Amino acid sequence: MGFAVVMIVICVIAGNRNIRMAKGKADGNEMTLETVRDSLIRQEDTIIFSLVERAKYPINSPTYHESYASIPGFSGPLIDFFVKETEALQAKAGKYQNPEERPFFPDHLPSSLVPPYEYPLILHPAANSINVNKKIWDMYFNKLLPMLAAPGDDGNYASTASSDLFCLQAISRRIHYGNFVAEVKFKDAPKDYEPAIRAQDREALMKLLTFEAVEKMVVERVEKKTMTFAQEVKLNSSSGDNTNYKVIPSVVAQLYQDWIMPLTKLVEVEYLLRRLD
Amino acid sequence: MGFAVVMIVICVIAGNRNIRMAKGKADGNEMTLETVRDSLIRQEDTIIFSLVERAKYPINSPTYHESYASIPGFSGPLIDFFVKETEALQAKAGKYQNPEERPFFPDHLPSSLVPPYEYPLILHPAANSINVNKKIWDMYFNKLLPMLAAPGDDGNYASTASSDLFCLQAISRRIHYGNFVAEVKFKDAPKDYEPAIRAQDREALMKLLTFEAVEKMVVERVEKKTMTFAQEVKLNSSSGDNTNYKVIPSVVAQLYQDWIMPLTKLVEVEYLLRRLD
Repeated sequence: MGFAVVMIVICVIAGNRNIRMAKGKADGNEMTLETVRDSLIRQEDTIIFSLVERAKYPINSPTYHESYASIPGFSGPLIDFFVKETEALQAKAGKYQNPEERPFFPDHLPSSLVPPYEYPLILHPAANSINVNKKIWDMYFNKLLPMLAAPGDDGNYASTASSDLFCLQAISRRIHYGNFVAEVKFKDAPKDYEPAIRAQDREALMKLLTFEAVEKMVVERVEKKTMTFAQEVKLNSSSGDNTNYKVIPSVVAQLYQDWIMPLTKLVEVEYLLRRLD
Repeated sequence: MGFAVVMIVICVIAGNRNIRMAKGKADGNEMTLETVRDSLIRQEDTIIFSLVERAKYPINSPTYHESYASIPGFSGPLIDFFVKETEALQAKAGKYQNPEERPFFPDHLPSSLVPPYEYPLILHPAANSINVNKKIWDMYFNKLLPMLAAPGDDGNYASTASSDLFCLQAISRRIHYGNFVAEVKFKDAPKDYEPAIRAQDREALMKLLTFEAVEKMVVERVEKKTMTFAQEVKLNSSSGDNTNYKVIPSVVAQLYQDWIMPLTKLVEVEYLLRRLD
């Protein structure tokens, strides 16, 4: 199994990764458009994995019916109970100390029980007030999920809810990363943005933040990634032979085109509007 | 975006999937070696996705240090707190009603708060007493994780613990699926197994359950899958160009060869030893 070779390869990879992280994260001033872009690209993989995992289960509608789970002391569907309680646990474990994370149920979230970690100060404090998770929740359950999960019921409601949360958190992290995108773009060329910010001109900001060629490339890339990650890999066939995808690539392309990129830009605009406060 | 076309494709896929599920799951007597094998193959993807996601974070050792998290009312490292509490929540949501699932902290697990789901009765009740999660826990943290995660600390201990749990649960489900493998094999040819079961002969059972050619194929397939799922997909390069894998394919091959397959067979043997009780 070439164990020593494997360990050497790991050390080399680890070394490279640390260099990249130090550049991107150790010092707020060193976050660049390139490191932000690298993170967004890596997050695409996480989103696609989460969608492929959710598609493993049928729709399992009792997960979402108020009438199904009559949990003592809680009124609402199982998914609400599950997401709310998981977020409370993750909050205790310090998850929401990270400025990249946003809860779906921010009210009455318990405090962290672990020692604080010094995340680099990159964002204007106004970023803390930006949370578009309500829009993400509605999009996910009303638009995306019906395209993702087959009809049916296999009883795995707890695992279904876990899977939904994995998708929701991956999509939410990507969209709220718009704060970092906006900050880096602003720092790169403050003079370009200041007039529109002072005029509180959303339309002008949206125009400054829109690069159609880049967006087209992102959509094409996530479609290609989905073809890769959602395929059935078989020993005796080469990549691309198989089009029996677990998630339809054009659905992920649509998710990015219609929801993820517009909502990311919404976060960017909201952030920039407050950037000079 | 060809929305109507997408919806038709989804309906066709959904239809096919339901037919497969009805064959595999709706009736206990219809679970076959083929449906069991299909599930094992699908679970490979989940395991690889979970490992790729864990490799996104550095080792983040405070997650595992008893001295780091001094959580009121809990003594132990953050990972223990996080896994225990998540399992408690998932138990309330009914996760452990599914005979495929096994908790890592089975003591004092709360009862399900949701209505019971009628899972098909496939296994001998003795399966309930088989839980090799302690071995899986030790293997994961002591052997696998050091090969998976780069050195370093980025403060994301809550997300790291979530990621660990995703890996642990995926690996545990695969290994305890050995119960179903054993049941289907036994049902297929009870006469082959009965003498060894009556003699409580572990070695003979292990021999009956070992097919080296099949195991070799599984190892090759998971290595190929890892090359596919752990690659960096780029728009302007074809599959296979890129060998900068997020998880080293031979590490997943080793995981299967040295731990997942032996532990699955251990579960199979334990199950068969009790099959005639």
